[in-house]
Amino acid sequence: MEDLTRTMLEAVEDALRQVVARANGSSLEEMHHMLAYHLGWEGEGSGRTARGKRVRPLLLMLVCSAAGGAWRDALPGAAAVELIHNFSLIHDDIQDNSPLRRGRPTVWKKWGIPQAINAGDAMFTLAQLAVLNLEKTTNPAVALKAAQMLNETSLQLTQGQYLDMHYEARGDLNLEAYWPMISGKTAALLTACTHIGALAAGAEPGIVNAYRQFGRALGLAFQAEDDLLGMWGEPALTGKSTESDLVQGKKTLPVLYGLSQGGSFARRWAKGTIREEEALRWAEQLTKEGAREFTQEHASRLTQQALQALDEARPQGEAGDKLRELANQLLHRKT
Amino acid sequence: MEDLTRTMLEAVEDALRQVVARANGSSLEEMHHMLAYHLGWEGEGSGRTARGKRVRPLLLMLVCSAAGGAWRDALPGAAAVELIHNFSLIHDDIQDNSPLRRGRPTVWKKWGIPQAINAGDAMFTLAQLAVLNLEKTTNPAVALKAAQMLNETSLQLTQGQYLDMHYEARGDLNLEAYWPMISGKTAALLTACTHIGALAAGAEPGIVNAYRQFGRALGLAFQAEDDLLGMWGEPALTGKSTESDLVQGKKTLPVLYGLSQGGSFARRWAKGTIREEEALRWAEQLTKEGAREFTQEHASRLTQQALQALDEARPQGEAGDKLRELANQLLHRKT
Repeated sequence: MEDLTRTMLEAVEDALRQVVARANGSSLEEMHHMLAYHLGWEGEGSGRTARGKRVRPLLLMLVCSAAGGAWRDALPGAAAVELIHNFSLIHDDIQDNSPLRRGRPTVWKKWGIPQAINAGDAMFTLAQLAVLNLEKTTNPAVALKAAQMLNETSLQLTQGQYLDMHYEARGDLNLEAYWPMISGKTAALLTACTHIGALAAGAEPGIVNAYRQFGRALGLAFQAEDDLLGMWGEPALTGKSTESDLVQGKKTLPVLYGLSQGGSFARRWAKGTIREEEALRWAEQLTKEGAREFTQEHASRLTQQALQALDEARPQGEAGDKLRELANQLLHRKT
Repeated sequence: MEDLTRTMLEAVEDALRQVVARANGSSLEEMHHMLAYHLGWEGEGSGRTARGKRVRPLLLMLVCSAAGGAWRDALPGAAAVELIHNFSLIHDDIQDNSPLRRGRPTVWKKWGIPQAINAGDAMFTLAQLAVLNLEKTTNPAVALKAAQMLNETSLQLTQGQYLDMHYEARGDLNLEAYWPMISGKTAALLTACTHIGALAAGAEPGIVNAYRQFGRALGLAFQAEDDLLGMWGEPALTGKSTESDLVQGKKTLPVLYGLSQGGSFARRWAKGTIREEEALRWAEQLTKEGAREFTQEHASRLTQQALQALDEARPQGEAGDKLRELANQLLHRKT
């Protein structure tokens, strides 16, 4: 079972390298290096950790195989979703003023904002070129549909990002604002992964739709779990202070729930940034006000929805087993 | 004859509005407004001047019609190239730190860099969604080919932009560096316009290729003319100081030629920014060193190439006449 995942991950890494090589050329070596650096292939600290888990392409390939397709046919789509994810990370890091990603200096920190904007744009373009290659491995109809999906997803990403920055600037947060923001920022791309994987397999519409629902619920559940971990997770496991989401002022589900209660947490939040030393106290206050239970209920409900949709999709074979395993890993993780 | 152009321009404006409306939605009105503002439809100073000339979509539609196609079938492609152009302008303005575009505050000046990066990303995504709509007006093969062309072009845009910023930072300019930079920044998108227009018409490969060559030579000639105007154009006509290209330190063809001569201009350039009051003198020095003649020769040769390629494409009908007219306007303009 390990072997299938490893084979897939090696294959997508090769596919990514081939696509990204298109940005290279005479006098363009440094531009290519920026992309290779961000993807964890080159430069200081390159390697496994720097690459991230490639969860999105893995999900896409597993779905393709579990839906009865040949997963190698889905490789162009798998490369595309990973490139979209990484394009958005390069731009997010500028927008959030983040100096580090996975422990390494971000692209803008190393090459400045103008070149980082451009590197992100190049990564986005490469994602487009990748997905169009599905024409060669599947057929024109699948390639067009997948390209359309990928761009509807990208539009949702920019909409989620807009809302995130907008609420950050304005401060008038509310619980209803959470779902559109998270749908765009997290769930949309996972939905595209499962959708494109099923399309590449040539699955029938009912199955494609079940995989779509699976991807969406998985994305939302993953985000709710992430919010729980960021507030009450074990620091030893998460590798960061449990309080960090609070200190960073992130608009997570428990925070928005707390604000909706108009209690002592909401009054404290309105007064400005929560400091490191008071974060534990306010995390406990959020628990008292019901934010932890509320978030856990949401996470459980979404997890159930995801697993139910996956059952309805009737995933088959070794990939089907791996897919269930991956879903459970993502939904019941400790880190 | 005026009517055809006007009808086309009105139609592409409608097509653009329809595509851009996809970014709108509940709580997303301001994000949509950023795009509508940049495109000259909304906000202070909106109107004709703010919109620009829409030369690229016009070129695409005229080529489609002159190659025997129904230009309305090419509208999704026409909208796409204009959106690609404007996506790159939004990001260029951040990268160049430009406060104004066509006399109006740039998107980043009004909404800040993070939101402007995101608005550019959204515009890029909308371009992709637009070009894929060619499937409905033509056929899947044309839509896929056009999407591929558009993204190869976008990759060249990012490569040209990389080189531009790279040379700006390093200062080691040379004449050979000019063409790859300009190919990416100016000629690539005009090539895509004529190529996609001919594809949408279902033209035979020889004709498609002639239109491609036309677009490329037109783009390069246009840029060489622009460099001439920026250095020696009449300020009254260009609406800016003739010296501004020099003062801004732009890496234009006459500047790179002057540097290659290693004469007194090159020695002055090496010492740092040329001031407003000495710009006229250095423009005259460049003329003495042969830079004006050199640039004019290039511009003439490229103009000849463009018009010859256009002849080889055998443009037909009213659109063919308008196409010749447009080419002559772009190549012999005073502003």
